[in-house]
Amino acid sequence: MADVKNFDSDCLFCKILKGDIPSTKVYEDELCYAFRDIAPQAPTHILVIPKEHIASAAELSAAENAALAAHILAVLPRIAAAEGLTGGWRIVSNVGPDAGQTVPHLHFHILGGQRLSDRMA
Amino acid sequence: MADVKNFDSDCLFCKILKGDIPSTKVYEDELCYAFRDIAPQAPTHILVIPKEHIASAAELSAAENAALAAHILAVLPRIAAAEGLTGGWRIVSNVGPDAGQTVPHLHFHILGGQRLSDRMA
Repeated sequence: MADVKNFDSDCLFCKILKGDIPSTKVYEDELCYAFRDIAPQAPTHILVIPKEHIASAAELSAAENAALAAHILAVLPRIAAAEGLTGGWRIVSNVGPDAGQTVPHLHFHILGGQRLSDRMA
Repeated sequence: MADVKNFDSDCLFCKILKGDIPSTKVYEDELCYAFRDIAPQAPTHILVIPKEHIASAAELSAAENAALAAHILAVLPRIAAAEGLTGGWRIVSNVGPDAGQTVPHLHFHILGGQRLSDRMA
């Protein structure tokens, strides 16, 4: 599939980007890839990841990642609209163990398709 | 306090930006302002908002908002670091009623300071 910048052969999402692990694709462009979470927490639960191994959103303060960050944030509403999430949706990104980040490759969750809990923590 | 682009006199967060409603400031620069949530869901619960009335993250697909989006995403890790959230932290942004968005002014939640729930929806 895609070329992955800073490819990490131990990273689940890098392997998904390479096509070595299957995923259900929702969206793809030059910079990012979106696929369905295999353990969805809502009727719509999509993960959006960069085609570059970046550990987490903690790395987004680096100047070289600014354009990528803007691009991903611009893509999220397009995916939500394509999914028909007219009632609303939630963006989540987890950083580190306290947040339960399970894969150390930056990812944004899109959650929707039902009234979500007011609890975010 | 700040000049607010597209100021909406009915918007709680625009009023906070103007200083008409008090808030506990955490961070401020030319483009954004961060303050503590008055109903925290975790030991650290901060809201980061643009100094511009933008309804939600659904508006971030607009090209004119790209630089602002990148800037806010770059600021979030700096605030988390300043708060000492070395164990991890979570970014959340709610769009529309299904996500329980209570104030129609784009805001990113920073949650941390404890092990957060794995439930995000």
